[in-house]
Amino acid sequence: MSVENTIGKARSKWMEGTGPDNDVVISSRLRLARNIEGYPFPHFMSEEEANHVINAVRLAVSEKAGAKFPVETEFIDLNELSQTERQILVEKHLVSPQHIESPANRAVVIAHDESLSIMVNEEDHIRIQCFLPGLQIKEAWRLADKIDDVLEKTLNYSFCEKRGYLTSCPTNVGTGLRASVMLHLPCLVMTKQLGAMVNTISQLGLAVRGYYGEGTEAYGDLFQVSNQVTMGQTEDEIVTNLLTVTRQIVSQERSTRKVVLKNNKPFLEDRIYRAFGVMSYARVMTAQEAIKNVSDLRLGVELGILKTPAYDQINELIILTRPAFLIKKAGRPLNAGELDALRAEIIREKLSKININ
Amino acid sequence: MSVENTIGKARSKWMEGTGPDNDVVISSRLRLARNIEGYPFPHFMSEEEANHVINAVRLAVSEKAGAKFPVETEFIDLNELSQTERQILVEKHLVSPQHIESPANRAVVIAHDESLSIMVNEEDHIRIQCFLPGLQIKEAWRLADKIDDVLEKTLNYSFCEKRGYLTSCPTNVGTGLRASVMLHLPCLVMTKQLGAMVNTISQLGLAVRGYYGEGTEAYGDLFQVSNQVTMGQTEDEIVTNLLTVTRQIVSQERSTRKVVLKNNKPFLEDRIYRAFGVMSYARVMTAQEAIKNVSDLRLGVELGILKTPAYDQINELIILTRPAFLIKKAGRPLNAGELDALRAEIIREKLSKININ
Repeated sequence: MSVENTIGKARSKWMEGTGPDNDVVISSRLRLARNIEGYPFPHFMSEEEANHVINAVRLAVSEKAGAKFPVETEFIDLNELSQTERQILVEKHLVSPQHIESPANRAVVIAHDESLSIMVNEEDHIRIQCFLPGLQIKEAWRLADKIDDVLEKTLNYSFCEKRGYLTSCPTNVGTGLRASVMLHLPCLVMTKQLGAMVNTISQLGLAVRGYYGEGTEAYGDLFQVSNQVTMGQTEDEIVTNLLTVTRQIVSQERSTRKVVLKNNKPFLEDRIYRAFGVMSYARVMTAQEAIKNVSDLRLGVELGILKTPAYDQINELIILTRPAFLIKKAGRPLNAGELDALRAEIIREKLSKININ
Repeated sequence: MSVENTIGKARSKWMEGTGPDNDVVISSRLRLARNIEGYPFPHFMSEEEANHVINAVRLAVSEKAGAKFPVETEFIDLNELSQTERQILVEKHLVSPQHIESPANRAVVIAHDESLSIMVNEEDHIRIQCFLPGLQIKEAWRLADKIDDVLEKTLNYSFCEKRGYLTSCPTNVGTGLRASVMLHLPCLVMTKQLGAMVNTISQLGLAVRGYYGEGTEAYGDLFQVSNQVTMGQTEDEIVTNLLTVTRQIVSQERSTRKVVLKNNKPFLEDRIYRAFGVMSYARVMTAQEAIKNVSDLRLGVELGILKTPAYDQINELIILTRPAFLIKKAGRPLNAGELDALRAEIIREKLSKININ
């Protein structure tokens, strides 16, 4: 595998559109924060120390060290990539926006099927992330746990008997575990139920965020729900709590869909078909409008109004039309107008192959 | 010919989309107001007098009286029609909205090709109206003049040597002539030049109105320009004045189109193709949105961005999607939601036969 594989294609394991409850849950993600004993946290490291950590991780994931991952991986130094390529990794959720802010002395390990990425020297030395389609938090945890065991064979983690895994930010101390799900909640948004739900969810120690995590806007009716607390609960408790709350949200969204479909079918059909019509013909489209239209298409499939596109095609459309992906495709810098024109062109091309009738 | 011909089809001579300057001028219309000597104006007539007038006109247009019209006509008593059918005559501009408000003792003579209609007992005893596609005010006047001559053979018009033709409303006294053109001015609207132009036009004794005349909104970038004064000018002066001003507006719209196309092509293409996309897929559409979208399609053809639909198909779409036409098609009363759904259906069906690419 070359990095071109990851950067050139708009598909990842988590985008398959499969998995349990895939009518509401797009993907599940689990992240473990780990640090190596004897080194300062990344923000306080010297370049030399940072390089030591990078090399230690590079060795830990290599076959030389006897690392046996359930998936094939590639080690990528962020400095080897262009800014556009790094941005693509963000757009595919493989690294955080923070990770590429200063790429020096940072790296990422990516699995071929993109079900796994390991950020090196982000906020912590190591952040293991597992992504699976649908509601598969436990499965993602199991995968992350395996990766964690492999790394631990070589690396000496900072661990305190009393507090658990030590991390750069106190909110991650303990299990170092953050689990999240990406949900499509068009009918909870439409019926204005989400605001009240977010309050309840917060009281259960969970946070609701937009599509690209903390501080990003929730557009396209897409929301991330994740645990806030990493200490004082076992991994199992964190995962089970998120699973339980997610199932409640899923159930609420589903019953709302039924009610909305019963009471407002012509309005819904109109909204969904208009989205398809606009996407099939527009010559200029902003990222925000694109994701709104994609969300409406997905709603059409979720409600059974449309038979196609399939969920994986819908997920692909979101990634394909993000700015860095477009710039990579064009092979040159694009201004805002050019981005919006190329986005519209790609959407038209993709939809022209889809027969919704 | 039966009245079904007129009410069942959405095409009239003026909708052909042909004629001079048809890229801006949809149609030309000329109306002559006439009254019969010895009868009060319609608002003050007894039923008996109204019937006398109706019978006099019925005879005047009949072959028995030796009437030789350049086009075949039919005499229709408004009471013979349903309210929906009368409304269709309004939607096709063959009668005024006022004419059908109280249909008792009122009639209309309609030519088979709908280039001519004669309202009987509207505001005046007789209103001869001629409609032609494109900028053909003189031609419409010539046709109206011929009809006027035919009627005058039998009917004794109220005429005063000093004031000219006497009419119910003083604004029509004199020539009794009102000439108007229907213009499509999307680029003058887009560039906000129309407001200032309307002021100038008013100072030249002309009025600018919306699609259905006095007091109606100007939607779909469609405007009627007509003379305000009927006295103190000869017929020729009125017609020539309107022709001159119209040619100036046409020229201004055309040069603005060139500028807009040069400076904003992607924006224009997007607007036009989106209109096509929405029309091809929407499930619900208000009359107002329909005419806005039709206007955008027309703009696409005017700018050469679209090769189809042809102007006659565009004009037909406007009429086909008016409420009374929809109700007639459904064969039963429709509520607002049903109207919007049927409108969207008819538009989809029509556009599915048009290949714009």
